[in-house]
Parts: sequence; structure tokens; C-alpha cells
Amino acid sequence: MSPTLHDRIDASLARALSAQRLAGSPPHLASAVRHAVFPGGGRVRPLLTLSTARACGDDAPGLSDAAAAAVELIHCASLVHDDLPIFDDALQRRGRPTVHAVFGPQVALLAGDALIVHAFDFLAESAGGHADRAIAMTRALAAGVGMPSGIIGGQAWECEPRVDRAAYHRAKTGALFRASVELGALAAGHAPAAWRAVGDHLGAAYQLADDLQDVLGRGEEAGKPVGQDLRLGRPNAVVELGVGGALQALARTVQDAEDAVPACGGRDGLIRLVRAIAARLVPDRALPEVRVPASAAG
Amino acid sequence: MSPTLHDRIDASLARALSAQRLAGSPPHLASAVRHAVFPGGGRVRPLLTLSTARACGDDAPGLSDAAAAAVELIHCASLVHDDLPIFDDALQRRGRPTVHAVFGPQVALLAGDALIVHAFDFLAESAGGHADRAIAMTRALAAGVGMPSGIIGGQAWECEPRVDRAAYHRAKTGALFRASVELGALAAGHAPAAWRAVGDHLGAAYQLADDLQDVLGRGEEAGKPVGQDLRLGRPNAVVELGVGGALQALARTVQDAEDAVPACGGRDGLIRLVRAIAARLVPDRALPEVRVPASAAG
Repeated sequence: MSPTLHDRIDASLARALSAQRLAGSPPHLASAVRHAVFPGGGRVRPLLTLSTARACGDDAPGLSDAAAAAVELIHCASLVHDDLPIFDDALQRRGRPTVHAVFGPQVALLAGDALIVHAFDFLAESAGGHADRAIAMTRALAAGVGMPSGIIGGQAWECEPRVDRAAYHRAKTGALFRASVELGALAAGHAPAAWRAVGDHLGAAYQLADDLQDVLGRGEEAGKPVGQDLRLGRPNAVVELGVGGALQALARTVQDAEDAVPACGGRDGLIRLVRAIAARLVPDRALPEVRVPASAAG
Repeated sequence: MSPTLHDRIDASLARALSAQRLAGSPPHLASAVRHAVFPGGGRVRPLLTLSTARACGDDAPGLSDAAAAAVELIHCASLVHDDLPIFDDALQRRGRPTVHAVFGPQVALLAGDALIVHAFDFLAESAGGHADRAIAMTRALAAGVGMPSGIIGGQAWECEPRVDRAAYHRAKTGALFRASVELGALAAGHAPAAWRAVGDHLGAAYQLADDLQDVLGRGEEAGKPVGQDLRLGRPNAVVELGVGGALQALARTVQDAEDAVPACGGRDGLIRLVRAIAARLVPDRALPEVRVPASAAG
């Protein structure tokens, strides 16, 4: 993945949570929010946002950068809330203590709330001369996050007695991938419809990989507890399809994501990103068994 | 208070949480969100938004209505999260079971998250031909809600070892009152600066009344548990100033709010609203002792 995009993401997140912006915050809240966002994981969603923006010409890079930060802030917020004792009760995330493990559940809950608000605020602040784009991006981000079918909706399916796995995963993971791609297109002044499928397929691939990781992974590799889905009785594709079936579905879905990239100047860059993401998705212990299509192996 | 404004608020909230908009949500999440918002309390913040918009000419009533709904959705979200077992552990609110008492803490946490997102989404959806206004409103709303000095920041001061009561209350209660007034002005195309002080003083009055209620109130009057501040060791003006001192401060602050209303066509309407709010603020048991200034008693 291009170091340039990573640099832009780091700089944008640093701006979003600068000391100046957080001045006057309760100190524990400010620390908790930074703990949730830095040093961070693969930054896959903001990479997708910037890659899509670049494929669309990226004529308002300040807005694309804000979009990248916004999707990552939302992603981090969802992790903080998911890790809380009333949900996963996870003490480790990305190989470090979770926010509530360090700051307690009260500050963790508020940090998640604050990150959600901050994402929308940072988008609005960065609108510049593109208020119409920023409004459309706000709506796309909200669709990826909220009711009925964003990641909050997805998480809430876990509290229902009857769940359709596909709908659940589409919301819980896919919705923010879709939003990441849409925000990239919108930031560059393009209609998001043509790009949506890339996000949808990548989101599905990510969820399959997460299901595999949960069943096959070791805690130290995953940087978080494994076996949670089985323990908590949550839908998991491996239970439904078996390891081999889930791996095949993953390979097929990655190919679908590649195929969905519209013809455009930055097509190659976006496909390289899809492949790089795919290469990281397969749990180490499953590698000998994987049959990834040749085109996705590069 | 004008029934017309109440009608507008009810209609706007009904639109924001219509069956059509929530279609496809996990059923418990959708029910929890509605439980949090309907039938609702005094709707003081959205009344303030619409009264301010009207005083400013209200030339984009669709946007004012959306702003009114947005501040109320945020207020309801904050109540849902504050009532959670890890905070107040309150089982009653507005005389009914709290969201977590009915739906459990998981759905309650997600309902609060979803309401926050929904508030920003509804503002953006209602931008119409006023994208610039909607962007400014998004920023004003975020300032009232998030870091460093919105209601989330205020709540997070409760998790700090050292707290300045004024800063804590300004954020915890005042920030959303300020935002309510600012959004009303912005929705009508006016600069918010001249209106800010009205929200600040009313927010301070509200917090003083809440402190009095917590010390003097009966549970059945308050519709929620009383004595929480003392039990949880939280700052309370009555502890600092005594009942008489707190009541005097309340009367003074209501007068300050009136005096702060700028000269404008709708000035009288807004002052009537301030007085109506003030009349509801004083706990019944304190009434014989109150010395409200004559101008605020009408």
C-alpha cells in the first residue's frame, strides 16, 4: 500500500484529534479517545476512501482526507463500544489493552460517543467550498453507521432472537466498507453508485476473514480474543460453510471486489489495494489451505 | 407555550423516526429508539430552537424543524446513556421505565449511539437548498454534544478526580441549550453569536433547577430518582450555595436569560418561552421560598 496514502491518513487523524482541538476536554476522555485511535490497525477503511477518491480524480484532497479520518474515527468508536463489558468484554485489541480496560467502562462509553460526534464534525469542518459534497458525505457516513442498516444496526442484530447472517454481516461490517468507498467518490465529486459494489464485496470478504480468524486464529495473532462467536452464539460463516467453504467464499468475494472496480484512471491503484487487503485477510493458520485466485495473489 | 411549535416538534420527530425510515432495523433497536423519544418530556430544547428561528424570521422552516428534532434526539440519546447501569443506573425516567430497564443495556447503548447518528443525518437530509447553513448547524450541534465542551465532555468530567462545578455544568447541561439556540438562528440564516447568551443563561438555570430537584424533589414528581448527586458525590449547587442561595441564583439566571434576548421581531415570543420554562423549573417543594423577579413570573 502506498506510503503516501498512509501519511495522509495519519496526518488527517492527527489533525482531527490535535491537542488544540481537544484542549479543555476532561483529561481521561482525551486520553481515551487517543488510545482508541492511535497507533491504530491497518487503516483499511480510510485507505479505501483515499484510493477511491484518487481513482475519481481527488480534486478536493482536504475533503478526502477528512472523509478518511471520519470513517476511521467511526470504526474506532465501534471497536471501543463493542469491546465493552456488556458486549464482548474484550481486554485486548490490536495487541494492547482495550479502552475500557485502561480507562474504565464509563470513560470508554463516552469516548465512543465522542468519536462518533467528532467524525461528523470533522467532515463538516472540512467542507470548505464543497458544502453540497459534505452534506452528501454526511448522509453516506450516517447510512454506514446508524439505523437501519449501518454498523450500529448490525451490532443490534446480536440482541435479536432471530438473525439472518447475511443481513447481519452486511450491516455489521459491510456498511462501513460501503460508506468508505462512497465517501471517497463523493469527496471527489463523483456519484457513489458505481463504486458501492467494491465496498460491499470487500466488506463481505472482511467479515468472512473475521469469521475465519475467530475460529482458526490464535489470540496473539489476532491481537484480540478469539472464539468469541462460538462462545457467544453469534452467526459465523465457518459454522455454516466449514473452513474450506468459508475460504472459497472469501477468495470468490475478493475477486468480485476486483471485478467491481469501475473503469477509471486510478483503477489499477484501487485493485492493488484490494489485493493488498486480501493478502492480509487470511489467517496465518489457514494459509496452506487457501486457494486465492491468481489475480488476487499479487 | 405555543401549541403550534409543539405540533411542529412532534411532526418533525415523527418524521425523523418514521416507520419508513426505521424499516429494516433490528426490531428491538427500533422500539428502543422510539421508547427513548416518545412521548417525551417538555421538549424544552427544540422549543428554544424554533422560538429562536422564529425570532430570526424562520425563512427555512423545514430546516428549523429538522434542527429542533436533532437537538431533541441528541438530548434523548444522552438520557439513555446517562441512565445506563454504569452511570446513574436509573430505572425510571419521565415516570416510565428507562430504555435499559425495558430493552437491556446492550440495546440501550446502541439506541443512544443510533440517536446521535440519526440527529446528524436528519439535519443533513433536511439541508435542501441551504447546504451552507446545514454545515454550520452540524458544527454547532457537534460543539454542543462532543469534545471538548459538549454534553459528552460534561458527563466525562464526572469521571475525573478534580472537577470545577461551573465548567462541568456549562458542558453537561449548558452546551446543548447553547446549541439549541444557535441552531435556531443558523436555520434562519442568522449569525448565532448574538443568541448564544440566551442559551447559556437558560442552560445554567436549568442546571440549578436540576440540582434543586435532586436535593428537594420527590421521585414521583421528578419522574426519575432523586438524591443521585449526593449519593454519587457529584457537584451540586445546593451543596455549595444552600437551598436559598441556589434559588436566588436560579432567579438571577432566568432574568439574565431574558435580558440577553436581542432586539428583534420575535423578541416577545422568546421571552414568553423563557418565562414559561422558568415557571416549570422550580421544584414544587421549594415554591413557597422562591423569589422570582416580577418580570420572570408572568
